[in-house]
Amino acid sequence: MSYFKVSIIGSGNVAGHLANALENAGHFVNEVYSRTRSHGEALVSKLYDTSYKEDLDFSESTSDIFIIAVSDSAIKEVAEAIIVPENAILVHTSGTRSLEDLNQYYTENTGVFYPLQTFSKIKKVDFGEIPICVEAKNKAALKGLKTLGKSLSKKVVEIDSQQRMILHIAAVFACNFTNHMFAISEEILRSKNMDFELLKPLIVETINKGLEIGPGAAQTGPAKRKDLETLDKHYDFLTNNDETLAEIYRIISQRILDKYEI
Amino acid sequence: MSYFKVSIIGSGNVAGHLANALENAGHFVNEVYSRTRSHGEALVSKLYDTSYKEDLDFSESTSDIFIIAVSDSAIKEVAEAIIVPENAILVHTSGTRSLEDLNQYYTENTGVFYPLQTFSKIKKVDFGEIPICVEAKNKAALKGLKTLGKSLSKKVVEIDSQQRMILHIAAVFACNFTNHMFAISEEILRSKNMDFELLKPLIVETINKGLEIGPGAAQTGPAKRKDLETLDKHYDFLTNNDETLAEIYRIISQRILDKYEI
Repeated sequence: MSYFKVSIIGSGNVAGHLANALENAGHFVNEVYSRTRSHGEALVSKLYDTSYKEDLDFSESTSDIFIIAVSDSAIKEVAEAIIVPENAILVHTSGTRSLEDLNQYYTENTGVFYPLQTFSKIKKVDFGEIPICVEAKNKAALKGLKTLGKSLSKKVVEIDSQQRMILHIAAVFACNFTNHMFAISEEILRSKNMDFELLKPLIVETINKGLEIGPGAAQTGPAKRKDLETLDKHYDFLTNNDETLAEIYRIISQRILDKYEI
Repeated sequence: MSYFKVSIIGSGNVAGHLANALENAGHFVNEVYSRTRSHGEALVSKLYDTSYKEDLDFSESTSDIFIIAVSDSAIKEVAEAIIVPENAILVHTSGTRSLEDLNQYYTENTGVFYPLQTFSKIKKVDFGEIPICVEAKNKAALKGLKTLGKSLSKKVVEIDSQQRMILHIAAVFACNFTNHMFAISEEILRSKNMDFELLKPLIVETINKGLEIGPGAAQTGPAKRKDLETLDKHYDFLTNNDETLAEIYRIISQRILDKYEI
């Protein structure tokens, strides 16, 4: 097992959870930089022996790996400004940004270290169960990132920038859109003074089933059973209340109708 | 606490789970009728002291409540054929069919007794957590159904046929469409040789968050944060691969963009 000295750029949720996980795995979190000093110092205070870094000139740093864990839109700016020691590994943690965002002069050892999970301030996460997607510009960086990943998680997968985009699209459907289906459901119920709570046991059971036996086999509902009478009734009701919802209902139902031939 | 004598018409998943729950709550499952004798007898054999009924003439039955737990499309046919004692309560268990489907000569005490859950053969369910939606044509039947419901579940709600339709539409969005979002996600990943397993920890966390803090507050993703660059990139990729998916992506993203003004 190799242990790394790591510097973290950023002090948000990803930075915080990652810093904790790194320390728990025996690595040394050397420095934390944050645009907002108070946030950076707050994170530093929760770590074992970490110093707050005033600027992005890390030329004198002894760290092996520099992790840029800032918002997607700030990655390029940080990558252009940061100075790291030659041979150090420089990564970002974004699911949406390309490896190319890290093009810069100081190291060729660039990569992506993307923990496939959503992080919130309050909730603890078990990093061991989080898939970590790694990508690197060269073999040396890839080897380092795989070693780092395996020290944190049981599941480390090599994924290139194109695959990471596709993974992100898949996640938009499975997570963001799923959540918006809940939001629509809640809106519909609220408009008739019914409580979304009522649906929760059914939602939990449906989702567990979909994840257990696979969504193809778990599909149910009027579109799946070609119940055109119910589909028409629902569509008419929605058309009279919210045309966008009616169109969303129509297009998803149509896709289910097409996918599951009798 | 009143205990009822109950006859069940049907031998599928709902009939089976309901029969068990009724016995566990102290009621007496008097008779089971099923169009398919072997299925009916299989259910009877799992119950305490229940007889198999050959036909739908229950005029000599001593049951208080008759529960039609058959497929939606068969309810009307059963309701037209069944003979029940005067004053008995006759209900169906469907989330989609109206109370009017039970119009018939023998009793005015008709109703709907709809457990809001999906049932499968193998899996045990905790009826106590399942909301039961009741509706009835008159006060006598309503009182009986509420008493029966409360003996099985902590949550019994009175919901009329119009509300039940809206509840069903909400469930289509929150359950059936959510499951189809998983199916789409899996398809996208499979087309690029990636494994849906990879997304599961993120899905579970996202859904738990949505149900805990509410889907409005839990919304994330490129549309939520108005990341038009990512939305365009995803849309372009989908357009080149599957125009229906591109359109689903566009219309749901647009609704999220519209809902969450910055």
